[in-house]
Amino acid sequence: MGEKVSQLPRETPKHPTIRASNSSFVLEKAGSVKYEDRPIPELKSPYDVLVNVKFTGICGSDVHYWVHGAIGHFIVRDPMVLGHESAGIVTEVGSSVTTLKKGDRVAMEPATPPFDGTLAKYYSLPEDFCYKLPENLSLEEGALVEPLSVGVHIVKQAAVRPGDSVVVFGAGPVGLLCMAVAKAFGANKIITVDINEDRLAFAQKYAATHAFRSQRESPADSAARLVKECGLGPGADIIIDASGAEICIQTAIHALRVGGTYVQGGMGKNDITFPIMAMCTKELNVKGSFRYGSGDYQLAVEMLAAGRISVKELITGKVAFTEAERAFEDVKAGKGIKMLIEGVKD
Amino acid sequence: MGEKVSQLPRETPKHPTIRASNSSFVLEKAGSVKYEDRPIPELKSPYDVLVNVKFTGICGSDVHYWVHGAIGHFIVRDPMVLGHESAGIVTEVGSSVTTLKKGDRVAMEPATPPFDGTLAKYYSLPEDFCYKLPENLSLEEGALVEPLSVGVHIVKQAAVRPGDSVVVFGAGPVGLLCMAVAKAFGANKIITVDINEDRLAFAQKYAATHAFRSQRESPADSAARLVKECGLGPGADIIIDASGAEICIQTAIHALRVGGTYVQGGMGKNDITFPIMAMCTKELNVKGSFRYGSGDYQLAVEMLAAGRISVKELITGKVAFTEAERAFEDVKAGKGIKMLIEGVKD
Amino acid sequence: MGEKVSQLPRETPKHPTIRASNSSFVLEKAGSVKYEDRPIPELKSPYDVLVNVKFTGICGSDVHYWVHGAIGHFIVRDPMVLGHESAGIVTEVGSSVTTLKKGDRVAMEPATPPFDGTLAKYYSLPEDFCYKLPENLSLEEGALVEPLSVGVHIVKQAAVRPGDSVVVFGAGPVGLLCMAVAKAFGANKIITVDINEDRLAFAQKYAATHAFRSQRESPADSAARLVKECGLGPGADIIIDASGAEICIQTAIHALRVGGTYVQGGMGKNDITFPIMAMCTKELNVKGSFRYGSGDYQLAVEMLAAGRISVKELITGKVAFTEAERAFEDVKAGKGIKMLIEGVKD
Amino acid sequence: MGEKVSQLPRETPKHPTIRASNSSFVLEKAGSVKYEDRPIPELKSPYDVLVNVKFTGICGSDVHYWVHGAIGHFIVRDPMVLGHESAGIVTEVGSSVTTLKKGDRVAMEPATPPFDGTLAKYYSLPEDFCYKLPENLSLEEGALVEPLSVGVHIVKQAAVRPGDSVVVFGAGPVGLLCMAVAKAFGANKIITVDINEDRLAFAQKYAATHAFRSQRESPADSAARLVKECGLGPGADIIIDASGAEICIQTAIHALRVGGTYVQGGMGKNDITFPIMAMCTKELNVKGSFRYGSGDYQLAVEMLAAGRISVKELITGKVAFTEAERAFEDVKAGKGIKMLIEGVKD
Repeated sequence: MGEKVSQLPRETPKHPTIRASNSSFVLEKAGSVKYEDRPIPELKSPYDVLVNVKFTGICGSDVHYWVHGAIGHFIVRDPMVLGHESAGIVTEVGSSVTTLKKGDRVAMEPATPPFDGTLAKYYSLPEDFCYKLPENLSLEEGALVEPLSVGVHIVKQAAVRPGDSVVVFGAGPVGLLCMAVAKAFGANKIITVDINEDRLAFAQKYAATHAFRSQRESPADSAARLVKECGLGPGADIIIDASGAEICIQTAIHALRVGGTYVQGGMGKNDITFPIMAMCTKELNVKGSFRYGSGDYQLAVEMLAAGRISVKELITGKVAFTEAERAFEDVKAGKGIKMLIEGVKD
Repeated sequence: MGEKVSQLPRETPKHPTIRASNSSFVLEKAGSVKYEDRPIPELKSPYDVLVNVKFTGICGSDVHYWVHGAIGHFIVRDPMVLGHESAGIVTEVGSSVTTLKKGDRVAMEPATPPFDGTLAKYYSLPEDFCYKLPENLSLEEGALVEPLSVGVHIVKQAAVRPGDSVVVFGAGPVGLLCMAVAKAFGANKIITVDINEDRLAFAQKYAATHAFRSQRESPADSAARLVKECGLGPGADIIIDASGAEICIQTAIHALRVGGTYVQGGMGKNDITFPIMAMCTKELNVKGSFRYGSGDYQLAVEMLAAGRISVKELITGKVAFTEAERAFEDVKAGKGIKMLIEGVKD
Repeated sequence: MGEKVSQLPRETPKHPTIRASNSSFVLEKAGSVKYEDRPIPELKSPYDVLVNVKFTGICGSDVHYWVHGAIGHFIVRDPMVLGHESAGIVTEVGSSVTTLKKGDRVAMEPATPPFDGTLAKYYSLPEDFCYKLPENLSLEEGALVEPLSVGVHIVKQAAVRPGDSVVVFGAGPVGLLCMAVAKAFGANKIITVDINEDRLAFAQKYAATHAFRSQRESPADSAARLVKECGLGPGADIIIDASGAEICIQTAIHALRVGGTYVQGGMGKNDITFPIMAMCTKELNVKGSFRYGSGDYQLAVEMLAAGRISVKELITGKVAFTEAERAFEDVKAGKGIKMLIEGVKD
Repeated sequence: MGEKVSQLPRETPKHPTIRASNSSFVLEKAGSVKYEDRPIPELKSPYDVLVNVKFTGICGSDVHYWVHGAIGHFIVRDPMVLGHESAGIVTEVGSSVTTLKKGDRVAMEPATPPFDGTLAKYYSLPEDFCYKLPENLSLEEGALVEPLSVGVHIVKQAAVRPGDSVVVFGAGPVGLLCMAVAKAFGANKIITVDINEDRLAFAQKYAATHAFRSQRESPADSAARLVKECGLGPGADIIIDASGAEICIQTAIHALRVGGTYVQGGMGKNDITFPIMAMCTKELNVKGSFRYGSGDYQLAVEMLAAGRISVKELITGKVAFTEAERAFEDVKAGKGIKMLIEGVKD
């Protein structure tokens, strides 16, 4: 039934007409994806709703699965539908559902790998995991509620206080969203750090007040230069790592003020060389952030709706559902900021 | 030497030329003010600076002194220079001063009644109580740093978290500044409550997202109407009182959600009838806010400089130093939002 | 079927043999109680357990229902089983219960009025509302877990920090338990305030480090005397009211230091005269505490089991189930600290 | 003048009579100490007092200086008086001193290396750095206020909440004091971890509720065994490292529950291999603690005076001032817990 995609010679017609019930974009194993017609999911509980998926974003972890077939302990053993940053329209509601009705536009908080994702025509989930989009938010913006919630969670972990200086290592989608959230939470100075000039320029147009380009130098030297060039005085109040790179983490610890806060937002190596005595003598607060927590999705939707944060600028392209793999290729190649995959056309 | 002002017939030339060294606007006793040439203050310590005062705002407590000659236990026994919301230019620095130099523009954190205030040509104070204005802030804005610090302190006491709904009773200067600060601290819904339609309209243009007009009704009824009309669901997250009115305080307690926070920002009667069991069963947090605390002035200047808060809109007029009493009359009459008194002309 | 108790002449045999299935002590209306044979409750869900009630304490609110037939909005309309401070032995477990088995000894977190209470032979509730007693705790101690949880919740609301001075108004069971909890949470100075010398003496033997006897004097005078006699310097760090008396609340506000914390733990009048400006200028934290919250029961059991708090001293008597009304009379008369009613004898 | 100590053959009379004004125990360079008659210090400010030192404890960092002549960047270049854990009697007070008088017994918060320390007959310091000992505390206990303050600071950083499980790696003096403080702050389960059985046994008699002996195994295995053997369920709430050993730090991160807190209290290598992804996905709070902060000394004295913490058990020996070096040798050899050096005899 399903047809292999990635092994097909490029010349042949890549996709037959997708006419069946629940067309899904499936990862078979590392490097191998296909479209598959799966049954439309049934509502498993009277509290579930069925959503017609309209837009889905792709992030680094999706690409990691696509390339490696696994992230850490999570290994894809059976073919798995990809995608978890989605918005769509409610098409069916369970008998006990009270907060949603057919036609409502929602951002979804879906299961994450290794469970089947949202790159399908339909996806079912409990009403409590759907966040109704107010009229002034588009479905495209709705697809960015998931990564925005990740940013909200990271910045909450950082306990940013109004007036704080906030440095963000890494100017990819999560780093950018952290900057926007930090600004909305009252941070005054927001410094983007990256090796890529284009990303720095984008970050400054989007939410950063200062930019700092990483160079080949020791973490201590880089930290000293960052503090000096960006006028951070006794050091930064808050540093968020959205890069996962060992050298960024080391630099961050050296660039914080006494009593400052570091949050690990990016995924990287399990073990790194860590300047523990610098952390100890400066009495830093070092914290981790993992996915999102209670209230983060709701706050993300509310701040978007109130115009406190804007995500439209981050959407740098859309591809049809039948071209989904191209979005993965672009993310892997570092093209654009956030690619959206459109839903299955009727 | 000094010449009585308020008892003079309106027709006579009100003020002789003010040519002497440190012309000061002095409250003699309730209802009686005069201009007086006092000596230019000497620097009492090597850490002091002398400031040529350029703009001074007037607030309700200044007017209260002017009318009553006292606030609570603070009674004016000797003639006292009025004014405490001022900005100016440093004209002399003590030998140990390291952070300021002649010509620097500063907002001042002066002594407050019953000590002599800033409505004079010159005022001396320690460098640590001067906050240098960055280039993008005017001296007029500098005169609003004091009331803004009061707002910063109140909103800090309220521990506003991003996404919170914040209701502010009273749309005078302090109430308005609380709204602006709450917005800068990430509050989503900001509701202004007042009896005056014009003030409500101004507040909505300035910082509020919703307005609610108080009416003659019981506190419980008013609270129920507020919650319903402004879509506060289970009640408001935060309520700030900047009115001091007993009925507002009572209404606020009834309008808060379980676990919500109330901050008393306005001064009023010493003792009121208070719904203590409503507070107890809803497990509210009730707090007081008095003047400002450590870091509030600095944060006020930083947020103004970063464009996170704007105060220019609140300045509704300026009068010459020789017309100072008119500013008091206007505040008493409820005219305008914030009147500034210009410094003594050379 | 049920037989009136309180109207019976004292000489007649008060209670027939209680031999039926689920003998219950029922409040019919204000001042009128009876024993009634009700059906043994069925497990409503597979997560429920049935508990054979062994000991039940009586508190002020039970007595208030007994005397007035109501507390505030809660009015007894249908005959209601009294009691909510109970421990017992599990006699039946639902099919999905995983944490308890027949024979386990548990403290119960039951429904509270106006729902039927625990003064019956059997009571059913979800396993999640049962707290297994470790071997070193008796069932008598288990019956005090409910009031201890109230104390834990109040002291948590007070955010007592190690070294704090804590004043507790009212030396009844809840006040005493607050003192013991405050001590276990690291408070250094614990001051009991009451009008009754015997209660003060008991409190000092139990958990207080100082005692202060209230007298007829103004709140401000009483506060000044309290601060002076107990060496509180600039005022108390924390004051807990477990009395509900207006004058105690007023005294407490005056006796706190700048930035101190007040917690309303006792129930009293809906509205009182409250020194709001003293609260405002001292920037107090005023909070309510209502029943208990997440984790309080568990912490109460753990601290008892670890020997950090002892409650045995508070049990001043036991009566047979057939003499239950005597416990109410004793509490009403202020006799003893905590009376326990034994379970129905087989 | 000064006479070398450490190079002297053991048989010769080690010390001439110490009769001069301010006999001091001085580190010349790594491994070389001597007694030296220095001038009695003058009061540098009217707020200073002069203290006749009566007891001084020795800690690991003193020994580190004695052996290596340096700790990190702090290198002893000029002969330096050792010692910083001292109590004594006030013998002279400056003209502006208000809180102390001649004869008062005080614990001192002195300067720390590379400044001259307290192993001398007299030491001068500001009154604000002296903590008066109440009558029920001995001068020997007073000498332990410094290390107790270190423990107070570490446990404050850990934000221990009543009922928490607290694991402490390292059962030396600081580790033991952390256990005692954690207990006084309301921790329920206190687990001592060490490789030395005698230390574990001592810790259990002193303050720990459980003991765990480290073995040669991977950090993950050790963590799993710790959690299982000590009944920590989903992991420990709080882990404090008072060992500085890399493997302990790694084990600690693996043994914490989701959202748990780690505090680095011991000094060790500047950089270690750190399981950053375990920290990230469990959203741990990792903090440093350095010396002590505002209020820690005061709280240490208050908790000792109130009997909430006892330190007498830790004093395992005393030596005369003329035998000071023996205390260093004993600490280096791991003999006893806390050795005190007596003051200079008149």
